Amino acid sequence: MQGLMQSYPLTVRMIIERMESHFAHKRVTTLRGGEKRITSYGQLIDRVRKLSAALRNQRLKPGDFVSTLMWNCQEHLETYLAVPAMGGVVHTINARVQPAAITFMLAETRPRMIIADLTLLDTLLKATLPDSVETVLVVGTQEDAPMPAVPGQKASWLSFEDFLASTDIACSWPDLDENSACGACYTSGTTGKMKGVLYSHRSTVLHAMAMMNVDGIALSEHDVCMTVVPMFHAHGWGFPHGSCLSGASQALSVRQADPETLADLIEDAGVTIATAVPTVWINMLEKIRSGEIPPKKLASLRRLPIGGAAVSADLMNGFADLGITVQHCWGMTEVSPLGLVSTRRSGVSDTEWSQLRLRQGISLAGCEMRVMNDKGARVPSDGFSGGELQMRGPWVADSYFDPDKPGHRGGDDKFETDMEGRRWLKTGDIATIDEHGYVKIVDRDKDLIKSGGEWISSLDLESALSEHPAVHEVAVVAIPDAVWQERPLAYVALSNNWCGPSPDFASYLEPRFPRWQIPERFIVLGELPKGATGKINKMRLRQLSCASAESISRSPDRKT
Amino acid sequence: MQGLMQSYPLTVRMIIERMESHFAHKRVTTLRGGEKRITSYGQLIDRVRKLSAALRNQRLKPGDFVSTLMWNCQEHLETYLAVPAMGGVVHTINARVQPAAITFMLAETRPRMIIADLTLLDTLLKATLPDSVETVLVVGTQEDAPMPAVPGQKASWLSFEDFLASTDIACSWPDLDENSACGACYTSGTTGKMKGVLYSHRSTVLHAMAMMNVDGIALSEHDVCMTVVPMFHAHGWGFPHGSCLSGASQALSVRQADPETLADLIEDAGVTIATAVPTVWINMLEKIRSGEIPPKKLASLRRLPIGGAAVSADLMNGFADLGITVQHCWGMTEVSPLGLVSTRRSGVSDTEWSQLRLRQGISLAGCEMRVMNDKGARVPSDGFSGGELQMRGPWVADSYFDPDKPGHRGGDDKFETDMEGRRWLKTGDIATIDEHGYVKIVDRDKDLIKSGGEWISSLDLESALSEHPAVHEVAVVAIPDAVWQERPLAYVALSNNWCGPSPDFASYLEPRFPRWQIPERFIVLGELPKGATGKINKMRLRQLSCASAESISRSPDRKT
Repeated sequence: MQGLMQSYPLTVRMIIERMESHFAHKRVTTLRGGEKRITSYGQLIDRVRKLSAALRNQRLKPGDFVSTLMWNCQEHLETYLAVPAMGGVVHTINARVQPAAITFMLAETRPRMIIADLTLLDTLLKATLPDSVETVLVVGTQEDAPMPAVPGQKASWLSFEDFLASTDIACSWPDLDENSACGACYTSGTTGKMKGVLYSHRSTVLHAMAMMNVDGIALSEHDVCMTVVPMFHAHGWGFPHGSCLSGASQALSVRQADPETLADLIEDAGVTIATAVPTVWINMLEKIRSGEIPPKKLASLRRLPIGGAAVSADLMNGFADLGITVQHCWGMTEVSPLGLVSTRRSGVSDTEWSQLRLRQGISLAGCEMRVMNDKGARVPSDGFSGGELQMRGPWVADSYFDPDKPGHRGGDDKFETDMEGRRWLKTGDIATIDEHGYVKIVDRDKDLIKSGGEWISSLDLESALSEHPAVHEVAVVAIPDAVWQERPLAYVALSNNWCGPSPDFASYLEPRFPRWQIPERFIVLGELPKGATGKINKMRLRQLSCASAESISRSPDRKT
Repeated sequence: MQGLMQSYPLTVRMIIERMESHFAHKRVTTLRGGEKRITSYGQLIDRVRKLSAALRNQRLKPGDFVSTLMWNCQEHLETYLAVPAMGGVVHTINARVQPAAITFMLAETRPRMIIADLTLLDTLLKATLPDSVETVLVVGTQEDAPMPAVPGQKASWLSFEDFLASTDIACSWPDLDENSACGACYTSGTTGKMKGVLYSHRSTVLHAMAMMNVDGIALSEHDVCMTVVPMFHAHGWGFPHGSCLSGASQALSVRQADPETLADLIEDAGVTIATAVPTVWINMLEKIRSGEIPPKKLASLRRLPIGGAAVSADLMNGFADLGITVQHCWGMTEVSPLGLVSTRRSGVSDTEWSQLRLRQGISLAGCEMRVMNDKGARVPSDGFSGGELQMRGPWVADSYFDPDKPGHRGGDDKFETDMEGRRWLKTGDIATIDEHGYVKIVDRDKDLIKSGGEWISSLDLESALSEHPAVHEVAVVAIPDAVWQERPLAYVALSNNWCGPSPDFASYLEPRFPRWQIPERFIVLGELPKGATGKINKMRLRQLSCASAESISRSPDRKT
């Protein structure tokens, strides 16, 4: 017996039409090299209609890929909306990966069109464009400026604005199957080949709805949202779509994420909520504490949902002093990306909360999680037993995109089917879960330090070290050890404000950890190496540690 | 090209499993005749498992109906969860309709089982039970008390508790198609035959997710929710499912909705949010103003989402003085039921808000609306042009249940398919929409007063009259008129606290309405007649007015 409710597909079209009917006066503020551009949602949707009509003129077919190589900007947002609304798939290329990686992704997705920022044409042209590419649109060109000369390319090159101006035809959008593909994003794995996640309209809309959940991000029509995380990372962590559905205004900074630029934009656009990796806010807090940025520039700011890495109590307290709540989140490209969000549950005391807020959070309503031990059993919710975090839900990936496999489904080793036939994403993160449902990420599977059969949490060590006043950045990695299999090694970059001698980190850690968990060596670097996503590149650090292979002077006592 | 996200069905099972994994310590407080029962969600889900196993033992098949004839209580909530989780359809019978209506509904749904409250057995036995009924479970029996004698019935009769005790088998739930039927509710139309709405798992889960929207009801894990509206009305307006998904605790009063009982329950369970028709809160406010109920009993209460009728400024102000926000909502059985929710939008001034809050609200994200004039065109969003409110969305009905029609699809006159093949529910409500997106219900289609080719809003007259200190309840209906086709007639019930002479309502209205809109006659009744849903029965009032047919003494001047 089927229900008799409307078969109403959850598609990007629904988001566009709500922006138009309810939020036409809301606006997108884009800052590009000091120049500010403000566009109302009403004007934006007019441009989305034109872009849609122009795509139709190009005979864009359902399932055709359109790749973007762009920073966060209004045109990227317009592409986010128009391409899926016409049935196409927006593949957002990470602008920080190597040309070979771009070549690889383009060969897999075989886009009909590429939309690229003027400042990224050099990057694009170092990659090999497949013969599927018919058109390249360039964003950020000056009016009347000639298009850059592009030798040896068969595709047509024109400016994004000229493409929009090529049609005046009003365009309506087709009704699409909600399960059809809407976006693609590749995980920038540190090893092996990159893996593409293929979002559907349904997953995108449900994720946007979940962002409005009062016990989640609580994204509201009252907000002005600044997405600092690049829009080529997992749909900008879902904030652009979430803002469009909820009717929040948006602020976007093209390329620049330095504290001064962001503080200007926050003040200018009245930003209430902003999202970025911790490094961005660590830098901001340093500038505020040093007096270089007056706190009043951040007067409108209320919430900072942070993902991508663990957040220290110091960062939370620093922003709390300014009336700004840092909110821990956890996600990954495969989860659209939000899976866990930290909010204070009822019945949690102030004392408990001071600790619980450091955990990654609670699974969003609509998503399921479990933590599985090595024997394939769920670990108890005791806040202590660790295992692999696994997720399922309507915005969790089922497979990786692999054009050579049947149904394009690849990457089976990262997914598991349980006895009931239910799919689980194996996140590779090691976690504990407590009686409140708060999940704590103990470590990345691949960054695990297993010393004498016991785990050492590199995250806990990093978290403690990051609170030391001399520390700007820190990463703890595993190095091989003849006795204990593995030992932790700490890499530290010192804060610019630190004028004293190199600190004794081992003594600093001693009151907080069992002696056997404390690293023997602390290596000070000018800066820690970063990967394409801005995360610290632990693989590179492990290579460094092997290159400078030294014997370990002191074998630690066990469990004292 | 399909997306590669999990095909994760949105079903009631997902709600149950979240209650179990995240909210086992939350609780349901049920008040039955002064006796209080508290059950944790953990215990509740244990009972849901038992009920599910017992239903499986009865060979409940997917699509089988289970009818309920119950008040709001824990067992009703358990039925809401267990029956759909096993693939069955919960048909909630309105306990206030006539036996003939019950007979009609049972003949359409042909349930395998009926679950009825002990206090409603007389009502049930006045109806004719179809031969499909194999089992009747009785709720509210005393332990060890004999089952009531039920002469001439072929079904097995046993107590709900004995049925649960009949199995110890742990039960897991099947994975169901999200579009399968999950619940049925009949609209209590004032004319013609009753029409069944068949909710799906998908519509139920999406509606519950939408209730957590921060710009909607913002139902949270921090809430304790008291559903006063009967659970046999449109899934209790969605609040039981919404509370289960969000993890809000619940408080339920069996049958009694008098101010004293509700105030006791609010105080006892720490209720933060409660939902009912305006009458309930009008009565509560009277008791508080008269000093019979001390305001401190309502100290925990924060929000009153109100639907079912327009709310007066006096009611809003009265509760605002106690720190309680009355929130206007609009819905109907066919919309699961929430379509419009009033929240204060950004940029709305205090002065604007004092008027806008009286409108029914803004369409929830996920739902679409339009207002259509007689010519089939959308009216402009000017807050003035009126037309029929039409809705579409994933929790809006597509057809009425009609077992005699192909695909069980009936009631075509209430639904419209537009040029793009998109379905719209014709709500029958006449509305305006303003530039902010706020919808104002001007009138019910069938209650419209069209006087000399012009509309008179009975709602506006009712709203103004309800603010008169002498008025307890009011209804304005159309009566036939030789000159003007129709004229308004006002029925008024005076407040118990009113000791003065019968007021001159016409003079009272004169400053606020054009003279031609003011009724010529005001009839004072001891109480206004109510329909099965507790709404004022305007059809009965129209009949009264015809029965006492009097000529109208004064023909009003037009448009002065």
